[in-house]
Amino acid sequence: MKTVFTFRPPRSLQARLIERYPSIEFMFYKTVEEAEELSDAEIIVTFGENLTPQRIEACKQLKWVMVASAGLEKMPLASLSEKDILVTNARGVHKIPMAEFTLGYLLNHVKRFLELQKLQGESTWNKRLPIGELADQTLLVLGTGAIGSEIARLAAAFRMKTIGINRSGRIADSFSNVYQIDQLLSVLPEADFVVSILPSTNETKHLLKKEHFQAMKKTAAFINIGRGDVLEEQVLMDALNEEEIAHAYLDVFVQEPLLEEHAFWNHEKITVTPHISSITPQYLPRVFEIFEYNLDQYLQGQGIYKNRVDINRGY
Amino acid sequence: MKTVFTFRPPRSLQARLIERYPSIEFMFYKTVEEAEELSDAEIIVTFGENLTPQRIEACKQLKWVMVASAGLEKMPLASLSEKDILVTNARGVHKIPMAEFTLGYLLNHVKRFLELQKLQGESTWNKRLPIGELADQTLLVLGTGAIGSEIARLAAAFRMKTIGINRSGRIADSFSNVYQIDQLLSVLPEADFVVSILPSTNETKHLLKKEHFQAMKKTAAFINIGRGDVLEEQVLMDALNEEEIAHAYLDVFVQEPLLEEHAFWNHEKITVTPHISSITPQYLPRVFEIFEYNLDQYLQGQGIYKNRVDINRGY
Repeated sequence: MKTVFTFRPPRSLQARLIERYPSIEFMFYKTVEEAEELSDAEIIVTFGENLTPQRIEACKQLKWVMVASAGLEKMPLASLSEKDILVTNARGVHKIPMAEFTLGYLLNHVKRFLELQKLQGESTWNKRLPIGELADQTLLVLGTGAIGSEIARLAAAFRMKTIGINRSGRIADSFSNVYQIDQLLSVLPEADFVVSILPSTNETKHLLKKEHFQAMKKTAAFINIGRGDVLEEQVLMDALNEEEIAHAYLDVFVQEPLLEEHAFWNHEKITVTPHISSITPQYLPRVFEIFEYNLDQYLQGQGIYKNRVDINRGY
Repeated sequence: MKTVFTFRPPRSLQARLIERYPSIEFMFYKTVEEAEELSDAEIIVTFGENLTPQRIEACKQLKWVMVASAGLEKMPLASLSEKDILVTNARGVHKIPMAEFTLGYLLNHVKRFLELQKLQGESTWNKRLPIGELADQTLLVLGTGAIGSEIARLAAAFRMKTIGINRSGRIADSFSNVYQIDQLLSVLPEADFVVSILPSTNETKHLLKKEHFQAMKKTAAFINIGRGDVLEEQVLMDALNEEEIAHAYLDVFVQEPLLEEHAFWNHEKITVTPHISSITPQYLPRVFEIFEYNLDQYLQGQGIYKNRVDINRGY
C-alpha cells in the first residue's frame, strides 16, 4: 500500500510513520510535480497545490486524500467526488494558533500597542492614551466550528460576551449566544469586534456587504482570518473611509500575495498580515496526529474518520 | 460623618454615593491641597499623593483611609499605623486590565506583531517569520495575589504552564505550581516568560540580580508591570546586551516618568510603556464597588473589610 506525500515533513515525523506502520510504503516528495509514483498511491497526503483533476484521474489505486490544511479551494473536488475518494483535512489544527492570533489582535486594539510603540520611538512618556479593556466587550464570530469555538473560549476567559453566527443558529461550544446567518444584520450592532473565519464557498462569497458595515458600531474592529472573498475589498475600503467602522485586521485577501501596489498596505486603518494566523511550530505534529488516527481507522477498516470532508459542501 | 475625597470622581459616581449614603457628608476635592476640610474627615478616599504625615497628624477624627490604588509607596504608613487608622486599598481592581496587558505582550511577542507591522510598512508579503504559540509555553509569575492569579488564569486558558512564586510557596488560584521565593533560581530555567507584579518593599527591592537573568532561557522575555526597583536597571541592560534573555517589556521604572535621555527608550530589545498596564475605563467604578462594600461594613460596625492593608508589610 503506497502512501505518497506531496510535501516533505521533517525527518522525525517521517521516521515515526515508517516505524509505526511497517505495512505501508511511504514516499515523501518535495512537490506534486516531483511525485513520480503519485498515480500508484492509495493514499495521498497533500497541501493541495497543483493536485489537478488530470492527476486525480490518473490515480487508479487512490482511496483517500488527506489534505494537510483546512481550506479546500485548491482541491479538485469534482474529480474526487466522482471517484468517491475519501477526503479528510486538518480542520482543528488551526484552531490554537488562529485563536491566539485573533486575541492578539483584540488586545493590540484595546491596549493601543501601535500607538504606544510610536510614543516609545519618540521617547515620549504619555499616560493619556485611552487604553481600553476586553472585559465586557462583545465579540461576534462568523463561523462556529473548531476555530470559532476556540476563539470564543478564549474570549470568554477574557470576560467578553461572545456571539456566534452559523447557518442553523445551533448552539456551539463556548458561545454566549448563537444566531442564524439570516439574523446577522440585527445582531451586528452589538459587536465591538467582528471576526470572520468563514471558508470560501458559494454561500460565503461576498456575504458581507455595505449594509453590514453600516450596521456595526463606528468603534468596531473587523478581523478577517477566514478567506478574503467574504467581501469585495472596495466595500471594506468604503466602510473604513466613511468611518462606518474603526479598523480592519486582515490576514487574508481576494488575491494572495497581496500586490505591492494594493491600497490596503498603506491604509492607516488597515493592519495587513501575510496569511499567517494559522502558522505554528506545532502545525505538522498536529496534522500527523490526525493523519495517524485516521490511518489506524483505515487499516482496521472501521471508517470512523476525524475531519472527513463533505465534498459537496466544500468543507 | 465627613468623607473627604482628594480627587474628583465622575459626577455619576458622586451622585450614587450621595444617594446611597444619606447619613454621610461627602466632599470631593480636586487635590489634597484643596481639601480644606481634610482635618475633619473621618474617612479619606485618596490616591495618596501628598498625603503627608503632617496632614495625617492634623486629622483628629480620622478612622479610615481608602487608597484608590494598590501601591502604597506614597502613603505615610508610619503615621497611619501609629494612629491605628484602618487602611484599605484597591487591590484587585487592577487585575483585569493588568492581566489583559500582560497577555497582550505575550501574544505580541510570539506572534511578532512588531515585525509584521514593519513588513506592512514596506508593503512586503513575507510568510517566513517564525511565528510562535503560547500553548505549551511556560509562564513564571513573581507574585501570586489577585493580579498574578488573574494572569495565570488567562495563561492557563491559552494552554500555558503557569508557575507562581511567592513567599511561602503556598498554592494560589490558577497556577499549575507555586514555589517559594528561595527556589526562584532553580525554576527560572523552565520559563519562557517571566512576569513581575511585585510591589516595592524592603524584601522585593533589587530582588532580581544578574544570576537570575543568567538562569533564564536565552529566548525568554521578561515583563515588569510591578515596580521598577525589583532590579537595578543596569542589571537588566546587561542581561539584554549579553543575550541572557531575548526581550524586556517594561511598564514600570525606577524613576517615573522615564527621563527622555534614558537608554531604555531606544533599546531594540526593550519595549517601554508609560506605567499604563492598570489603566481601564472601569477603574473608578470598580474602586467604588470596593469602597461601597467596605462602607456598608463600616456603617454596620461589622469590620470585615475587603482589601484591608497590613501596614507593617506595606501591602
